[in-house]
Amino acid sequence: MGYVAVKKTMSAIPQDIIDQENAKLMAAHQADYDALGVRLARVGIDIEHIVDRLMTLEVGIPSWGMVSGGTRFARFPMPGEPTHILEKIEDCAAVHQVSGLTPRISLHFPWDKANDIDEVRDYAHAHGMGFDAVNSNTFQDQPGQRLSYKYGSLTHSDPATRAQAIEHNLECIEIGDRLCAKGLTVWIGDGSNFAGQNEFADTLDRYLESMKAIYAALPHDWRLFIEHKLYEPAFYATVIQDWGTSILCAQQLGPKAQCLVDLGHHAPSVNIELIVARLAQFGKLGGFHFNDSKYGDDDLDAGSLNPFQLFLIFNELVYAETRARGQFNPAYMMDQSHNVTDPIESLLNSARAIAGAYVKALIVDRKALREYQSSNDVMMAHHCLRMAYETDVRPALAMARLRKGGAIDPMMTFRASGYRAQKARVRKSRPAIGGGII
Amino acid sequence: MGYVAVKKTMSAIPQDIIDQENAKLMAAHQADYDALGVRLARVGIDIEHIVDRLMTLEVGIPSWGMVSGGTRFARFPMPGEPTHILEKIEDCAAVHQVSGLTPRISLHFPWDKANDIDEVRDYAHAHGMGFDAVNSNTFQDQPGQRLSYKYGSLTHSDPATRAQAIEHNLECIEIGDRLCAKGLTVWIGDGSNFAGQNEFADTLDRYLESMKAIYAALPHDWRLFIEHKLYEPAFYATVIQDWGTSILCAQQLGPKAQCLVDLGHHAPSVNIELIVARLAQFGKLGGFHFNDSKYGDDDLDAGSLNPFQLFLIFNELVYAETRARGQFNPAYMMDQSHNVTDPIESLLNSARAIAGAYVKALIVDRKALREYQSSNDVMMAHHCLRMAYETDVRPALAMARLRKGGAIDPMMTFRASGYRAQKARVRKSRPAIGGGII
Amino acid sequence: MGYVAVKKTMSAIPQDIIDQENAKLMAAHQADYDALGVRLARVGIDIEHIVDRLMTLEVGIPSWGMVSGGTRFARFPMPGEPTHILEKIEDCAAVHQVSGLTPRISLHFPWDKANDIDEVRDYAHAHGMGFDAVNSNTFQDQPGQRLSYKYGSLTHSDPATRAQAIEHNLECIEIGDRLCAKGLTVWIGDGSNFAGQNEFADTLDRYLESMKAIYAALPHDWRLFIEHKLYEPAFYATVIQDWGTSILCAQQLGPKAQCLVDLGHHAPSVNIELIVARLAQFGKLGGFHFNDSKYGDDDLDAGSLNPFQLFLIFNELVYAETRARGQFNPAYMMDQSHNVTDPIESLLNSARAIAGAYVKALIVDRKALREYQSSNDVMMAHHCLRMAYETDVRPALAMARLRKGGAIDPMMTFRASGYRAQKARVRKSRPAIGGGII
Amino acid sequence: MGYVAVKKTMSAIPQDIIDQENAKLMAAHQADYDALGVRLARVGIDIEHIVDRLMTLEVGIPSWGMVSGGTRFARFPMPGEPTHILEKIEDCAAVHQVSGLTPRISLHFPWDKANDIDEVRDYAHAHGMGFDAVNSNTFQDQPGQRLSYKYGSLTHSDPATRAQAIEHNLECIEIGDRLCAKGLTVWIGDGSNFAGQNEFADTLDRYLESMKAIYAALPHDWRLFIEHKLYEPAFYATVIQDWGTSILCAQQLGPKAQCLVDLGHHAPSVNIELIVARLAQFGKLGGFHFNDSKYGDDDLDAGSLNPFQLFLIFNELVYAETRARGQFNPAYMMDQSHNVTDPIESLLNSARAIAGAYVKALIVDRKALREYQSSNDVMMAHHCLRMAYETDVRPALAMARLRKGGAIDPMMTFRASGYRAQKARVRKSRPAIGGGII
Repeated sequence: MGYVAVKKTMSAIPQDIIDQENAKLMAAHQADYDALGVRLARVGIDIEHIVDRLMTLEVGIPSWGMVSGGTRFARFPMPGEPTHILEKIEDCAAVHQVSGLTPRISLHFPWDKANDIDEVRDYAHAHGMGFDAVNSNTFQDQPGQRLSYKYGSLTHSDPATRAQAIEHNLECIEIGDRLCAKGLTVWIGDGSNFAGQNEFADTLDRYLESMKAIYAALPHDWRLFIEHKLYEPAFYATVIQDWGTSILCAQQLGPKAQCLVDLGHHAPSVNIELIVARLAQFGKLGGFHFNDSKYGDDDLDAGSLNPFQLFLIFNELVYAETRARGQFNPAYMMDQSHNVTDPIESLLNSARAIAGAYVKALIVDRKALREYQSSNDVMMAHHCLRMAYETDVRPALAMARLRKGGAIDPMMTFRASGYRAQKARVRKSRPAIGGGII
Repeated sequence: MGYVAVKKTMSAIPQDIIDQENAKLMAAHQADYDALGVRLARVGIDIEHIVDRLMTLEVGIPSWGMVSGGTRFARFPMPGEPTHILEKIEDCAAVHQVSGLTPRISLHFPWDKANDIDEVRDYAHAHGMGFDAVNSNTFQDQPGQRLSYKYGSLTHSDPATRAQAIEHNLECIEIGDRLCAKGLTVWIGDGSNFAGQNEFADTLDRYLESMKAIYAALPHDWRLFIEHKLYEPAFYATVIQDWGTSILCAQQLGPKAQCLVDLGHHAPSVNIELIVARLAQFGKLGGFHFNDSKYGDDDLDAGSLNPFQLFLIFNELVYAETRARGQFNPAYMMDQSHNVTDPIESLLNSARAIAGAYVKALIVDRKALREYQSSNDVMMAHHCLRMAYETDVRPALAMARLRKGGAIDPMMTFRASGYRAQKARVRKSRPAIGGGII
Repeated sequence: MGYVAVKKTMSAIPQDIIDQENAKLMAAHQADYDALGVRLARVGIDIEHIVDRLMTLEVGIPSWGMVSGGTRFARFPMPGEPTHILEKIEDCAAVHQVSGLTPRISLHFPWDKANDIDEVRDYAHAHGMGFDAVNSNTFQDQPGQRLSYKYGSLTHSDPATRAQAIEHNLECIEIGDRLCAKGLTVWIGDGSNFAGQNEFADTLDRYLESMKAIYAALPHDWRLFIEHKLYEPAFYATVIQDWGTSILCAQQLGPKAQCLVDLGHHAPSVNIELIVARLAQFGKLGGFHFNDSKYGDDDLDAGSLNPFQLFLIFNELVYAETRARGQFNPAYMMDQSHNVTDPIESLLNSARAIAGAYVKALIVDRKALREYQSSNDVMMAHHCLRMAYETDVRPALAMARLRKGGAIDPMMTFRASGYRAQKARVRKSRPAIGGGII
Repeated sequence: MGYVAVKKTMSAIPQDIIDQENAKLMAAHQADYDALGVRLARVGIDIEHIVDRLMTLEVGIPSWGMVSGGTRFARFPMPGEPTHILEKIEDCAAVHQVSGLTPRISLHFPWDKANDIDEVRDYAHAHGMGFDAVNSNTFQDQPGQRLSYKYGSLTHSDPATRAQAIEHNLECIEIGDRLCAKGLTVWIGDGSNFAGQNEFADTLDRYLESMKAIYAALPHDWRLFIEHKLYEPAFYATVIQDWGTSILCAQQLGPKAQCLVDLGHHAPSVNIELIVARLAQFGKLGGFHFNDSKYGDDDLDAGSLNPFQLFLIFNELVYAETRARGQFNPAYMMDQSHNVTDPIESLLNSARAIAGAYVKALIVDRKALREYQSSNDVMMAHHCLRMAYETDVRPALAMARLRKGGAIDPMMTFRASGYRAQKARVRKSRPAIGGGII
């Protein structure tokens, strides 16, 4: 989605650095790759086929994830953070260059607003990058904004405030269209902190009315992603609190409206892979915001806390693809808050985890699995997944990266490039306190 | 639903005992009632109107809740428990007699199977009791059962097992019809304990296919209640895991299919009153299984742990009734497990909590609330609910019971009647170990 | 604790406004009070005794709670917010004036740092206010700060950073001492976002070492409150994650070290009143940060979401007081984030909820309760609590406020005073974006 | 603990079957092992050293886990389940034979009571099995039991009931002593379902008094394991609800008293590896009940839902061992409920997961990790763990099993042996309904 094949003319990281690092690791990499190939061949899997499929995987990255995140308590910036959209694009390009997995940037407005949209687009294209779904922001007040979103935006009791929020979304579509993006993600902070603050049904009525106006403005090949969230910033109730409300709204809006699953936006202990399967089954799985969490919407690195869950999600995706016969096209994106790590490194870390989960899902023996399931051989059905999961697929990931011009070892290569230190010398510093973090 | 006006000819508890107990408390009761009336009149509410509305509230009680419940670890029976369906009916009648709130019994098959269904019906009617929705049971294997539900029932991979489970539901409808019940509640334990055990989409396909067969057999004035549950007995995934799957299935099945909300079947910290509002808004709120819980599906007495939540649920129900303009008719039932209390006493305790929550919801100043909401006066909107909630409505409850022939103080009256001790002398004892408990 | 009897010479709200509002409500108030008195007398309770005890209840309020709170996503300020410590004191005094319950302010450094500490103290005293425990802040970096707390403070791997954090705490003690405060509350954000980031045992060793240095600097009549928190800002593990670690550390430090229970800092579904009882039993219950929450550390108004839980906590406190025979002196404080309400109104709302919970706990029939417990009459033991809880104690609260010179209806009286509108005219406005919110 | 070296004279599974299966897999196994060895050598690890350490790992298995488990809703037995203690021992021996990891059985009384204790011991020894900690059961009533545990056991309000429960524990010690077991695990179901049912402090006082009597009867080389549990069967509060209460009680009792961590007995989202570290740091980590869970105390196969968490727990254990310098000796045991799988297969599955987690923890580069931690290189510290975790260590596990006489592929070997089918022919069948399941 949103990717325009263009001639890449600029490199965030000099390619020769990547090549040099790869050269050091090549022999060991090839040996490991061969050993994995032998092992997979033994169970009837062609490693080349797996690498080919992996090379088609694309995951978007968020512009807002390129700066240090924070919490309501504090934000601790690091030297060399990007300070405007062009610098963010450059950092995104660096991630893609070594990972080979993240060719699109997701923008957030008005944070990423620029005077010259064409310059933004061209600068991205020159780095070999396209644009993912654009994101509207009606959960904050901006300097000079006429009406406040303190008590809601698309669901506000005042029609004028709703109109303002709708208008902002329409503008996002317009900008996105010029960037060749193909989707709009709408996440709102609307909800309540007190019982009685709103009538639940009335706010949802207003939500649907507002969203219909936005839906009507979508270009024909766009999708509208509805993102639900159990809580935060609203702490008693949110308007789009779970996948149930999300899918009912998507049904009301029409075929372009789909549900977006952020892995951190669910109640404790909920089975997320099951929700993924349900959305796929009912034709409304629009895409993902990948991250990981232990307590709430922690926005930690995807796969860093429960990698098995990430695998199970991809297991559902691979299965849904089979069932859907070509109708299945979820948009993948990372949405993380990097509070104590270099954002580029965290995105590399997460890209690896996502690719790993995908490859492990690809090597599940689905024919055997299906037979075990049919005969209720529970242990062997589970074993089937576990054997795929326990396989060390790092050599396959490295090979896919390598073939795309990326790094065998992305983290070490990025560090070897001295990229961040160089940026710390040339970029302005940002203040420690404050937010704007999703 | 399901209630047939009949001449009551039998009393579980002698009416004169109730009258005697009431006589002792009458003076204080009248004084408290008058004081409450004055207080409510001051805010423009006619206490008589409230009592009239309360007198229309009816809550079903579960036959299986009349015996001591238990856990997988143990069951500790008490002397005088009912040992067959007629004794359960008698106990239910005792609850209704003193509470005036529970005129219908919900049966569970095959647990409540009887050779002579007419006798069951007549015995209930003679006690002034009717029948609520009937419940099928395909989460256990029964002695002599041909095919096991170990790996599923309505969703089993084997068509023969599904057919058996469908057949059981059809039989439940048939029995229910003879009892003048008007609904079937389907809760299944189907799901999985291991990732990989089932394909989520396939099991749901089979569920829908099975349910369509059951739906087709419903009498024209019946409803089919779909009951979701996050987990237990399946511990990795359940087929109908939440209200989202529930409502999507209800949509597929048709207008008679509605969603049933058991208060204990949700993920931790989920906002249940919001789910209630959503189901009402989308026209699929079928009814409730009231209980309370702190950790999981604890099945404790309704209102015993979070009475404010119960109030907020009734607050939604009162509001939904207004919005729906007559189309709104959820079925109320208690579904509790009484592990350490006398089941009759726990049901009296819960009936009081439910009636209290309803009355408090009725005395919310909705006109003021709406204005506060419109103007985003969050504090006063919340205050509006709190002022209703903090009102001591016990005198109104007592008056409604009294006017229906019940007890001013149900608990003390029940104890004064010596009912349980008398039953302990005449009923057989039940074994300590074992289950069959929802 | 920390309260110095002084002559009050300044009033945040003109007393005659309070008196006028009270006059309007007096007749109805007296009637309600009398009716409650009759009702309580019937169960052997003297309402005057209850009001007397309530009048001894004191709850601290946080200086940082006087401005609009926010989340990592946004902060929406309101007109008339205080902009420095003296204005905060004035607002606190307004809360105390109408509620009669909150005579002490808890300061947070460096947020509340002032050039002239004596002026701060005198200004508070002139308003009839004293000081509660002071709070250190090592979870943020301040402009000009030498070493960053990004990777920890009291537990940082670098001894110099730890020394800086210790030094800050010593300064807090020094300032607090000049304010006649008698306690220091230490809450740190230290922890980790990634598995492997720290060794758990090593960080706790360093915590204890740092805390010993702070403990050693405590004046003889001070207490050191250890505040635990499950998560946020650290999202994988926190150093003082629960009451278990808290009490073990308090044991290591010595008798002045006690545990502070913030109601929002626990895992989902944990029984907080049980934790309160455990800390009391082992002699380490230092105090509370009252608030309410549904999902995480939501910091909503105390008693606004689960008032029954608040009652159960006070039920434990009343019982612990009996058991402890005079040795029991927990410090009560509110710690809330007021994101969508006027902070003063939210604190009035919470003060009412806290006082109500306390009164309801006082009117529990403890003699009867004990007998029911001894004989395992579970239902009646529970009933005992419920009957107290369901009592409408608002008239008793109003009487206690009235007798302390406060308002029968604090919320309406505060609004009638026009306090906030007047402040909006004279105070500077604050920026919408940013934090510093607990 | 509790293991007596004896001459094994009986085999549950004929050794030649194991050898035949191994022979088929030997070539591939050796190739994989060699490849892993090369890979580990590249990062400075000697695979032989790892296998040697793994071969010292011993995990106990529960006698009660050898039969199909169930829930309060149902139990679905399978053909060939053991029907008495000798058959359970035989099944345990089968697990140990192919896994080489589970040389000890944990007995549960009175479930495992036998007329001839010596016969039990000798039969186990003949199978090469010893005994782990014995378990008392005061959470159920047994036929003929004088006083009921419905309202508590060691904490019951009635001293006679407490005495009976103490007496049962003393008998367990006596039997355990004859079996050469070296520990007693005490888990009680005591607690409450209703607020007010108990005074928390009083019940804990009684618990400590009862436990002191049991502690006094421990042989000198025994340990007393205190097992906490957040909830179930008590649903409002339990007496030993978390590790905090557990360790405080262990402190009160003395050095032989230690805390046992069951992985499923915690609140949602709690960081269990952190609790493990805390207990180790304060010298009270007694041991584990391994299992896995998603929602509550699901008792699923260890490592089946969150294998990364299991790895992180072993990571703490390996580190604690280093810190403790020889003083560290936790007892490992599995405690699972096998509801839909063959218990033997589930235990093999879990044994593999546990051994895998241990080996992955062993290959963490601790020197590098420590340096990254010291310099707050968060990403690389995390990476360090991840690189170990992502390694496919199955060849090392297979080698350890092989060298102990076990199976390269335990699951397939067990199936090839026809063990269960053979038992189904000779053992009696068990009823479907009922419990006694932990």
